[in-house]
Amino acid sequence: LAKWDETRLRELLGEMHASELAELLLSCRKDEERSRLIESIPDELLGEAMLELPEGMQEDLLTDFDADEVEEVVEHLDSDDAADFLQAVDKGVADEVMERLEPSDRREIEQLMSHDEETAGGLMQAELFKVRTGWSVEKVLQVLRRFGREIENLNYVYVVNDEDLLEGVLSLHTLLFAEPDVMVTDLADRDFPRVLAGQDQEDVARIFEKFDVLALPVVNDLGELIGRITADDVIDVIHEEATEDMYRLAALSDQDDLAEPVTITAGRRGVWLMVNLITAIAASLVIAQFEATIAQIVALAVLMPIVASMGGIAGTQTLTVIVRGIALGRVTFANARRTLIKEVSVGLVSGLVFALVIGTIASLWFPDLGVRLGAVIAAAMMLNLFAAGLAGALIPLTLKRLNIDPALASGTILTTVTDVVGFFAFLGLATLFLI
Amino acid sequence: LAKWDETRLRELLGEMHASELAELLLSCRKDEERSRLIESIPDELLGEAMLELPEGMQEDLLTDFDADEVEEVVEHLDSDDAADFLQAVDKGVADEVMERLEPSDRREIEQLMSHDEETAGGLMQAELFKVRTGWSVEKVLQVLRRFGREIENLNYVYVVNDEDLLEGVLSLHTLLFAEPDVMVTDLADRDFPRVLAGQDQEDVARIFEKFDVLALPVVNDLGELIGRITADDVIDVIHEEATEDMYRLAALSDQDDLAEPVTITAGRRGVWLMVNLITAIAASLVIAQFEATIAQIVALAVLMPIVASMGGIAGTQTLTVIVRGIALGRVTFANARRTLIKEVSVGLVSGLVFALVIGTIASLWFPDLGVRLGAVIAAAMMLNLFAAGLAGALIPLTLKRLNIDPALASGTILTTVTDVVGFFAFLGLATLFLI
Repeated sequence: LAKWDETRLRELLGEMHASELAELLLSCRKDEERSRLIESIPDELLGEAMLELPEGMQEDLLTDFDADEVEEVVEHLDSDDAADFLQAVDKGVADEVMERLEPSDRREIEQLMSHDEETAGGLMQAELFKVRTGWSVEKVLQVLRRFGREIENLNYVYVVNDEDLLEGVLSLHTLLFAEPDVMVTDLADRDFPRVLAGQDQEDVARIFEKFDVLALPVVNDLGELIGRITADDVIDVIHEEATEDMYRLAALSDQDDLAEPVTITAGRRGVWLMVNLITAIAASLVIAQFEATIAQIVALAVLMPIVASMGGIAGTQTLTVIVRGIALGRVTFANARRTLIKEVSVGLVSGLVFALVIGTIASLWFPDLGVRLGAVIAAAMMLNLFAAGLAGALIPLTLKRLNIDPALASGTILTTVTDVVGFFAFLGLATLFLI
Repeated sequence: LAKWDETRLRELLGEMHASELAELLLSCRKDEERSRLIESIPDELLGEAMLELPEGMQEDLLTDFDADEVEEVVEHLDSDDAADFLQAVDKGVADEVMERLEPSDRREIEQLMSHDEETAGGLMQAELFKVRTGWSVEKVLQVLRRFGREIENLNYVYVVNDEDLLEGVLSLHTLLFAEPDVMVTDLADRDFPRVLAGQDQEDVARIFEKFDVLALPVVNDLGELIGRITADDVIDVIHEEATEDMYRLAALSDQDDLAEPVTITAGRRGVWLMVNLITAIAASLVIAQFEATIAQIVALAVLMPIVASMGGIAGTQTLTVIVRGIALGRVTFANARRTLIKEVSVGLVSGLVFALVIGTIASLWFPDLGVRLGAVIAAAMMLNLFAAGLAGALIPLTLKRLNIDPALASGTILTTVTDVVGFFAFLGLATLFLI
């Protein structure tokens, strides 16, 4: 890279796609290399490329940008990207750039910045094509040819009335096949789905999936059309939401990133490891109550992790199905009871089966204790797999009811339950019946 | 439902969206209710609704369909959905229906059915709008108005040469703003991304995400245009792939479904629980080697699950980040070494920190054994968190190298490693230094 001549490099980078540029930036090993690249990326691509970087790196790189540089980048961005970009740079610099913008652009961006990032309002862009209820197809096509050129991925035309209330949606496709003198109000789809600016981005993704559309109009509480969200933005959201759930289920912070330095990653994960340490100690306190029993029958120490581990796995299975079901809208409060009953039943059935299996194995493994040990571990296994089904379903449903992300911390709570129940049931029953 | 009059029900169902109908079918508690609903859903909606159901329920319901019923449903479906639907019904019925189709439709559907379900070819639909290299914009618009009406979500026009090789892509948007006498070859985007029919659906999703397009053309190995994939189909794929990874990480079969009966679910999960039982017994065999040590120092039985649990959590953190990174294309063989070094380093750093923490706690908890016990558990913790980082990164990368899904079974292998290393290191060191 260092040897490349500036003009040639600039040319080459200019031909790349924003996401390819982002990958190139991510793969740089040295900061100087990265800075050199940033200087050589044409302004019209730089903004989009920066927005594809993980947040941590974005912030690092953007601290070096002054108002002039930011202004040049923002000029080339769509309103939604411009708002995101300005939210990522220094507050002082952002304010300076905002003041230099044209009043109409500034208002647009201010409005976009006012929405929570993870809502429909935070996702939408202001660029869209509005037509009035009284217009004919011919007029729409005329106006579209004059003013629509700059709108990317224009697939729908939005019909609004004099008060800017969204009346219906008309696809470019329908327009193309319509007679010139038909009125748009007669053609527009009045039942076309729409989203409220405050709706969560997960809802938005679900509506896209449900109705198989390529863009959704966004309205405010009054029903006024204020933006649109295109399918390509939603693809990013779906990836993000799935990653978030997966990370949370695995006791990871959702900011955990491959590109972060070791110390930052170790710190983020350390928080959750600390939480796990505390719960593991809680489980050990349960074992400590039975030290005398274990001292008499060491076989218990050999077998007890099996009971805990099976509970943990079975509970995680249920938990994952429920968390994913909630995320995809398939588990709701309406069917929560049925779901709970099913999961508990699955716990009972596998509890029965694995009680038999482990009971037999334990009896044969430790013939001195024989069937009595087998019966104790079988009972403990049954109890723990029942508890696993119950906790695996109840924890995420309860978190959801409390308006907390059902994936958050639920794995840790679950394994605490299955460890405590597993150790307590097995060692407790052993104390009662084997000594 | 039973009280509703047939005409009214039919009318009501006819106004619903296919995915709403699928939800309604899913929520039926009794089989008769479901059959009654299916009879009342208009044919033009029934196919799409059935395709939204989970595979198990689909198959159950479709066994009752005869060739006449299937034919009526298939008539209303796009080529891709028709192929999927025919693949879900009985082989005999499907063959009968295929024979009744018009030869051109049959060939189209046969071609679609010949592709693996999880590839670009399996996702694509044959309906698209092709134009020849020599055409002008005016001619395209004329032909489009005549023949394009039935193509849903038509956003791009595909330019092919005389041999049907894809030359470029032209958006409806560009067409609308072009002068009538310009040639399509001058307007078409020749670098527009394309996918091969054999490419994995995960690749397809990644290309959509990367290039922010609303549809992708599919070509065969010769470069001939054979279909297109629209963004709304990809949204389903992304959900599916994320669910699959999440399920596999949690030791779930990817067919596990909320709507299945208890016994089926218990059976599917039982397979993985059985695998886990075997690995848990392997870990217990390690403990069994140290029965004599535990008999002398019962505190070891109290503390040993902490070492194993911390290794399991830390390993799962790394594993999840790597599996997700591979799925999103951020972890590749090119950066595998760097990723591995990072994860092992994180393991070492947290190993050091938590060694100190647990060492101190253990020394204070069991003052009789004091600092010596603290040192032993600290060393075991460090070893296990190092092993967790190494295994958490190596397992998915190795599976990927062997062309196996990196999420498959990796959780089970990982916890086996961290359990065995944890118990062996802790009890082994205790035997050497505390007795």
